[in-house]
Amino acid sequence: MRFSIFYEHQLPRPWDEGAEARLYRDALEQVELADRLGFDHVWEVEHHFLEEYSHSSAPEVFLAAASQRTRRIRLGHGIVQLPPNVNHPARVAERVATLDLVSGGRVDFGTGESSSSAELGGFGVRRADKREQWTDAIDAITRMFVEEPFAGWRSRWLRMPPRNVVPKPVQKPHPPLWVACSRRETIEFAARNGIGALSFSFVEPEDAGRWVDAYYRIIESEECVPAGFAVNPNVAVVLPMMLHEDEATAIERGIDGAHFFGFALAHYYGTTPHDPGRTDIWDAFQRRRAAQGFDRDQIIANAEALRVNVGSLRGAVGTPDQVADLIRRYQAVGVDQVSFVLQSGPNRHEHIMEALELFGKQVLPRFTEGREEREAAKAERLAPAIERALARRDPPRTLPPGYRIDEEAEILRARRAARRPADLRSTLSAARSGGRRRVQRGFYRLVHGAPDERIERRFGTRAQRVFFAGMARAFDPAMAGGFQGELMFRLTRRDGTATEWTIRVAGGRARSRPGPAREPALTVTAATADFLRVLAGDANPATLLMDGRLKLRGDVELAPRLSEMFGGPSPY
Amino acid sequence: MRFSIFYEHQLPRPWDEGAEARLYRDALEQVELADRLGFDHVWEVEHHFLEEYSHSSAPEVFLAAASQRTRRIRLGHGIVQLPPNVNHPARVAERVATLDLVSGGRVDFGTGESSSSAELGGFGVRRADKREQWTDAIDAITRMFVEEPFAGWRSRWLRMPPRNVVPKPVQKPHPPLWVACSRRETIEFAARNGIGALSFSFVEPEDAGRWVDAYYRIIESEECVPAGFAVNPNVAVVLPMMLHEDEATAIERGIDGAHFFGFALAHYYGTTPHDPGRTDIWDAFQRRRAAQGFDRDQIIANAEALRVNVGSLRGAVGTPDQVADLIRRYQAVGVDQVSFVLQSGPNRHEHIMEALELFGKQVLPRFTEGREEREAAKAERLAPAIERALARRDPPRTLPPGYRIDEEAEILRARRAARRPADLRSTLSAARSGGRRRVQRGFYRLVHGAPDERIERRFGTRAQRVFFAGMARAFDPAMAGGFQGELMFRLTRRDGTATEWTIRVAGGRARSRPGPAREPALTVTAATADFLRVLAGDANPATLLMDGRLKLRGDVELAPRLSEMFGGPSPY
Repeated sequence: MRFSIFYEHQLPRPWDEGAEARLYRDALEQVELADRLGFDHVWEVEHHFLEEYSHSSAPEVFLAAASQRTRRIRLGHGIVQLPPNVNHPARVAERVATLDLVSGGRVDFGTGESSSSAELGGFGVRRADKREQWTDAIDAITRMFVEEPFAGWRSRWLRMPPRNVVPKPVQKPHPPLWVACSRRETIEFAARNGIGALSFSFVEPEDAGRWVDAYYRIIESEECVPAGFAVNPNVAVVLPMMLHEDEATAIERGIDGAHFFGFALAHYYGTTPHDPGRTDIWDAFQRRRAAQGFDRDQIIANAEALRVNVGSLRGAVGTPDQVADLIRRYQAVGVDQVSFVLQSGPNRHEHIMEALELFGKQVLPRFTEGREEREAAKAERLAPAIERALARRDPPRTLPPGYRIDEEAEILRARRAARRPADLRSTLSAARSGGRRRVQRGFYRLVHGAPDERIERRFGTRAQRVFFAGMARAFDPAMAGGFQGELMFRLTRRDGTATEWTIRVAGGRARSRPGPAREPALTVTAATADFLRVLAGDANPATLLMDGRLKLRGDVELAPRLSEMFGGPSPY
Repeated sequence: MRFSIFYEHQLPRPWDEGAEARLYRDALEQVELADRLGFDHVWEVEHHFLEEYSHSSAPEVFLAAASQRTRRIRLGHGIVQLPPNVNHPARVAERVATLDLVSGGRVDFGTGESSSSAELGGFGVRRADKREQWTDAIDAITRMFVEEPFAGWRSRWLRMPPRNVVPKPVQKPHPPLWVACSRRETIEFAARNGIGALSFSFVEPEDAGRWVDAYYRIIESEECVPAGFAVNPNVAVVLPMMLHEDEATAIERGIDGAHFFGFALAHYYGTTPHDPGRTDIWDAFQRRRAAQGFDRDQIIANAEALRVNVGSLRGAVGTPDQVADLIRRYQAVGVDQVSFVLQSGPNRHEHIMEALELFGKQVLPRFTEGREEREAAKAERLAPAIERALARRDPPRTLPPGYRIDEEAEILRARRAARRPADLRSTLSAARSGGRRRVQRGFYRLVHGAPDERIERRFGTRAQRVFFAGMARAFDPAMAGGFQGELMFRLTRRDGTATEWTIRVAGGRARSRPGPAREPALTVTAATADFLRVLAGDANPATLLMDGRLKLRGDVELAPRLSEMFGGPSPY
């Protein structure tokens, strides 16, 4: 069992001068203390515009500050909102890597989709799209960590040319990945992606147990296809907390914070109207808490066992013994980490500091004995399944040498992608993951899996003439970078003979003809079957080039442009 | 004269394991020392994908780390790239504010547009658009700092509904603004925007003098319309630096770094081809430095006076006396800050530390006497001009109460804006700043500036019938949020009489008719002239509401939807 503290940076109204500065200063002090006491992680959320509930809109800044006040505690950047409208995936990769550098490799990278109306509406992210955006972005970001250079991206949500995204993280292949979960469904989703589940669902330990079982069953199954290049098999639960030797004092100090946390969460994630800059959640809380299930008196009247979800949200507000009991129940069902929210609602800094101290002295030590051994045993048990899971993930890509940064062409590609209607973009996005563009499907079927001989026979000179004429017609001067001249294609056959074709580019147009060029700017030589496979989308020219099956002579820098010049997809 | 150190986080190839971690760790140590020695600022750039030249892609993280290792030094977040494709404006406001909080109000907010192909192509930012994006983004960001709530944004580059962007910065109204300048033209641009000029142009002091004169002439002129809500009249120049008592040692230790800085800058900002992840700039530098004007031997042969730009870039590489002389020349022409790049190319950490120490002991003290008084005198001299300049800036806006976060409508607005062709978007964007949509221009002209009486006379019952019919025709059920029922408009006249109109919404359509509604969901009462002014775009309904000139009865939450429901622009 590992322990962490969790920050939303809550600030109930009314706000006095300097309140936000105090909030941040106090939190840094608390984190410094938690580090000394042996807490394992500090998590900080990323939320936008959720006034009172969370003034933590730039966790990258807070955690970086915390990195210099601490030595061992891990920095949970959780959760970073992955929809590209909120954070460009390259910026996320850069920030996570930089934080990993300044902290000496202590980052845990938590991810999520955001789901409050304030955030989705504020950044223009459609609720229906956010899951797909998460999946797309995490794939891109983890590749930015490991690919050198990142080989580029083309999806419905992100278009980016090849670049070396620097710096790289200290932890290899990258910091452990997590995803925020609020339902059983999301915990299973985490398992299918091979990443840690950070659960906010305030479940009783016994319910959590069922979730944990489902999680590890999937991690060890074929369903697990890791989103990153490492698997992080962990389940953490988040709970409100306040600790004192005297139960009544613990409740007195902590229950308003725990309840405000739940109330404000319901405010932003439910349908309560919110008038930015004006709605006073603290005031509403005081008036309506009991009606909404956050009854202070009821908690005080029933102060025996800790209850997380049944009745009013009490979480881990209690005595060291009570809290240790609760933790043991989570431990018994296989939860790996309990994360405590102490800073919530009106909870006071000095009480938080006292509670941390008390936890460090009286609760934490009860759970450290044999911990390393248990974790090592778990790692050993899961190792074969993780190895199998990693083999299912598409590996890092290698960009063939010769790509040149080309601002104009890159911008053009990005703008064209943005102009395409959404359905075509989906098709292209599908094409990336194995599908084919409809128009090419028939051609592709005829070529795919066919031996060289059959392809040669099927597509003789007459068919080739049609293909080259088609290429010439599809010529796009905007992607030609001002090129004028002749391109020669020499298609060899298995019997040693060859056919030559020339495309001449001049005055913004292209014409094809059989026969060799006089002074070709570039000559492409390949087996007829390979060349047709490229045209059909069944072979990647860059791979053929690296395998020596496609040869270039002349101005080789023209080669990466060829596909787009003749109406094909961008190779990047 | 103020002094700063400037970081690109350069890392020439070859890269060994741990090189980036060392780079960051060393830089933090250097900043800590600079703070102790009395340097005034540490600046850190934001650059993306510029391998070798700058591994500083997340300065928000580095500076936040530095904030906890230092006490007085100001943190120059410079420059943040403002095109929204790189950084969403709300994310910039949040990060700057959070950094200001954790540092106790020590942030200087440097801004820029980015101009390397690697960055523009990488993020899909058109070169032709970036200046306009800068102007748009800085206006939005500074409003996010001061408006509570931010009243929303609608431009060609950013669409955002009203939100309270939290946290707010410690410094009021916001941290000092700067812009990166590389040409005289940009320095004048900085002055016109009332912000500090951070100049990278490596000019001799005498040339800098002409720029400084131009800058302050504009600051004090009517041309200055501040981009923010405070003016930051300052000019800083950036120079490579290395210091040693012995000139030859200073050169030995610093010239390769200074030259590599210049060479790699030219590499990325010129037309040199770059193959991401493969091009080796350090290798190219060694082979071509002399040919490109970075001749090591020539520097050593001509080691007398420091030259910044004439011949090879030497900057402030020399002895304490030489560097003090150079600073004095900049001081004489009115430069406010000299910023030194010590960490560049292969410069070694221990040499940088020594140079900082030496500067702190032997150079810095020569410039501190009377500094506060000189700065106070300058502030006093400029105060009246600054006050006049601030009066020219559009003030913070007040969002009328009653706005409700409405995810669905907000997303719809954002998507519609994105679908509009660029020219219409520009028109809308122009409309925001005082222009009018073409179709309304005629109507607007008839109404604008006309007294109530004339408007009443011109637009009698017959004209009003046409307007209401037009509103009904333009009804957009998607923006009606499911509303069904009757809306009543009561238009009063100066003689005390009134005309009533009803629009009935049912089954996804709207119909207008004269006369009162039986059970209106909402009744809008206004003077005929005021109502027509709203229709013509000559009056803001929110302002009329707050002035009591427009009255609502019934379901007032319908009111903010009215404009969009009937085909008008979104009020947000």
